[in-house]
Amino acid sequence: MSQTLLLPRWLLSMKPGEDTLEHHGLLMDGERIAAIGTHAELLAKYPQAARVDLPEQILIPGLINAHAHSAMTLLRGVADDVPLMDWLQNHIWPLEKKWVSEAWTYLGSKLAAAEGLRSGTTYINDMYFFPTAMARAAVDSGVRAAVSMNVIDFPTGYASGPDDYIAKGVAAYEQYKGEKLLDWTSAPHAPYTVSDETFIKLRDLAEKLDIQMHCHIHETAGEVSDSVKQYGVRPIERLDKLGLFSERMIAVHMVHLNEAEIELMARKGVHLVHNPNSNLKLASGVMPLKALEAAGVNTILGTDGAASNNRLDMFGEIRSAALLAKGITGDPTVASARTALEMATIRAAKAMGRADDLGSLEVGKLADVVAVSLDSLECQPVYNAAAQLVYVAGREHVSNVWVGGRQVLKDRQPTTIDVPGLLAEVRDVVGRMKAG
Amino acid sequence: MSQTLLLPRWLLSMKPGEDTLEHHGLLMDGERIAAIGTHAELLAKYPQAARVDLPEQILIPGLINAHAHSAMTLLRGVADDVPLMDWLQNHIWPLEKKWVSEAWTYLGSKLAAAEGLRSGTTYINDMYFFPTAMARAAVDSGVRAAVSMNVIDFPTGYASGPDDYIAKGVAAYEQYKGEKLLDWTSAPHAPYTVSDETFIKLRDLAEKLDIQMHCHIHETAGEVSDSVKQYGVRPIERLDKLGLFSERMIAVHMVHLNEAEIELMARKGVHLVHNPNSNLKLASGVMPLKALEAAGVNTILGTDGAASNNRLDMFGEIRSAALLAKGITGDPTVASARTALEMATIRAAKAMGRADDLGSLEVGKLADVVAVSLDSLECQPVYNAAAQLVYVAGREHVSNVWVGGRQVLKDRQPTTIDVPGLLAEVRDVVGRMKAG
Repeated sequence: MSQTLLLPRWLLSMKPGEDTLEHHGLLMDGERIAAIGTHAELLAKYPQAARVDLPEQILIPGLINAHAHSAMTLLRGVADDVPLMDWLQNHIWPLEKKWVSEAWTYLGSKLAAAEGLRSGTTYINDMYFFPTAMARAAVDSGVRAAVSMNVIDFPTGYASGPDDYIAKGVAAYEQYKGEKLLDWTSAPHAPYTVSDETFIKLRDLAEKLDIQMHCHIHETAGEVSDSVKQYGVRPIERLDKLGLFSERMIAVHMVHLNEAEIELMARKGVHLVHNPNSNLKLASGVMPLKALEAAGVNTILGTDGAASNNRLDMFGEIRSAALLAKGITGDPTVASARTALEMATIRAAKAMGRADDLGSLEVGKLADVVAVSLDSLECQPVYNAAAQLVYVAGREHVSNVWVGGRQVLKDRQPTTIDVPGLLAEVRDVVGRMKAG
Repeated sequence: MSQTLLLPRWLLSMKPGEDTLEHHGLLMDGERIAAIGTHAELLAKYPQAARVDLPEQILIPGLINAHAHSAMTLLRGVADDVPLMDWLQNHIWPLEKKWVSEAWTYLGSKLAAAEGLRSGTTYINDMYFFPTAMARAAVDSGVRAAVSMNVIDFPTGYASGPDDYIAKGVAAYEQYKGEKLLDWTSAPHAPYTVSDETFIKLRDLAEKLDIQMHCHIHETAGEVSDSVKQYGVRPIERLDKLGLFSERMIAVHMVHLNEAEIELMARKGVHLVHNPNSNLKLASGVMPLKALEAAGVNTILGTDGAASNNRLDMFGEIRSAALLAKGITGDPTVASARTALEMATIRAAKAMGRADDLGSLEVGKLADVVAVSLDSLECQPVYNAAAQLVYVAGREHVSNVWVGGRQVLKDRQPTTIDVPGLLAEVRDVVGRMKAG
């Protein structure tokens, strides 16, 4: 087994109750973290280990992007400054219908994986069509992903109807079973695109396979009022009656919530994904993070797709989550730097059902590790390295990334991806999309 | 006179009504823009000019940071997640009292200038003590600044009282008269720190010297309610009675505004500086940008100081202004990419009284030019280069900057500043601050 010592200036484990450690490092042994200690201790105890010096850098756990549509990088900036339903119905869905294929999804997902690695994302909770394409893109890029068995009740270029989506999802799941980088989710798209019958099938599928669920819920006020017209109840009440809410559910957006709904989420242990920048850009509103925190709900963070954000930048989401909750509520103590970082790490690992392996730098956990450099003039001076990550540093300061002990980003260059080749393919495909 | 052709992939002049031009460039002749045209036209007409090829880059006017406390970079991250008054009274003011000097202000201002240049800022509307330090830092860095004759009614390490502040400000103004990179402002700090008598003196000083004014107004709800207790009226009503509002006034923050106040700002031609990230972080609230736009008020953008933001990053402010106004109002068409870019360029030049020289790329204007590279994988693909600047690109994509025709940033390195030497000095001073 290969052993490597990472020796940064600071180490922020995100272990509950542990603050930033200075002049500490960690030992990676194969795919796991085998030791954490001071530089002196580690060097004395593991003289044979390879040594990576990371001066003026801080080590943190790999960031977990809890909601993305990776392939939509190919639609980045295709339509801005328009409302969600206009954006979906008049821009995104027609383009997807025309262009989305296994190859297109693979290409866009690989671009997303590269963008993710360069911003410290080591785990992507994805939702899209053609799950085998996302699975391949993640494995080829060396990044972890939760691939979706995504279902929508209407036909697309990918599948003809709910049973076809489910069959294709399950086939992909079977094909990639045992692949260590991958988890899977049972993923009804949203209450406004999925019937009760399909929701029940996907609930049962998640139970049967013992996997998490992934669903957009209460993104816009319109979604809620339409549901009241169509079903007589708000989407959350409808889904609760269908038995959808438990610790298996990763509920995305959740912008429009009343007190009873917040209490229900806390009681059922549902994980709520805040997508601050996407929700702002599409004018959907702002998730009530302060109230959710007070209720003890497990809140986490996602970028959404690059067509609506338009960045897959977890540093941006961490910063926006911390700033927005303060500005909206008038309470500068809410969503502290620590809380915002937890939302992208240890809380998210719990949501993915991977708390034993991921989300913090602890002995025995998988070595998903990100080094962030604080030595550029933009990041100086440093009074508090943890807060600096949230309020000062950006994704451009991510220097090196390891996933399961394998270095996948070195001095900001992905080691697993031929970037010039990837970009040439992107330009070719997008050129054809623009032409046609 | 030296002539240089800049030949980018795209050129966004920000001239009213002109959209992004492709395969256009510009000719700099000395300190001004002498021609704009297609690459072919320019190369044919100016074969002797030096030539700078900027493939996959977009040229925009230099960004104008309409509100900064430059020297406070030295206090970046000194206290986070606390309210404005606690932050000021228990953290910032005691540190400033102990440490701020001419040398400290020069050092912090130079760090701010470097951070600004690396994020495309070519003009800083500054407010701080020791104006000669800011003046020197700007001139030495080759960046434009509006230096403040800043006044606060209580004594600091800089001055003993209002008349001393004014005398020192005027002396600095006289000393630097004729320096092309500098403008000056008459700058009462805020309604809660400046008396009526001092406000009147500073109003008269601005008239006499024919310069702009710069003042924090209506930043927090507490400021407004305290004024009602002390003066019987809200700060805006008090300042209006003192004759403070005209096209000379650059009013900063303006978070808490009623309809009559918005109408007054429009009628008087006051320029309002939106500081979205600082206002969020200090939990002050959100400026009502949609209502101000509807009323026709000239809204512009600033970073505030690095102690409260914690970045001097105009790209971050542009993006936050565009996203926040949408999310808060539920209107995705408000604060379009174009509007947000105008706030940092042509509208800001008007606010500074420099519309004839700055704010857009037009023949005859000063050559304050920023090149932004869109070729990294994070910025691909490009459907709309202007929107890409707002929703996708970050300050890290600024590649080259010219101020008055002089290249001050080349391949992301300041040409005017010894960065390692600067950072060594910063570490030394901050080390002493931490120790003592």
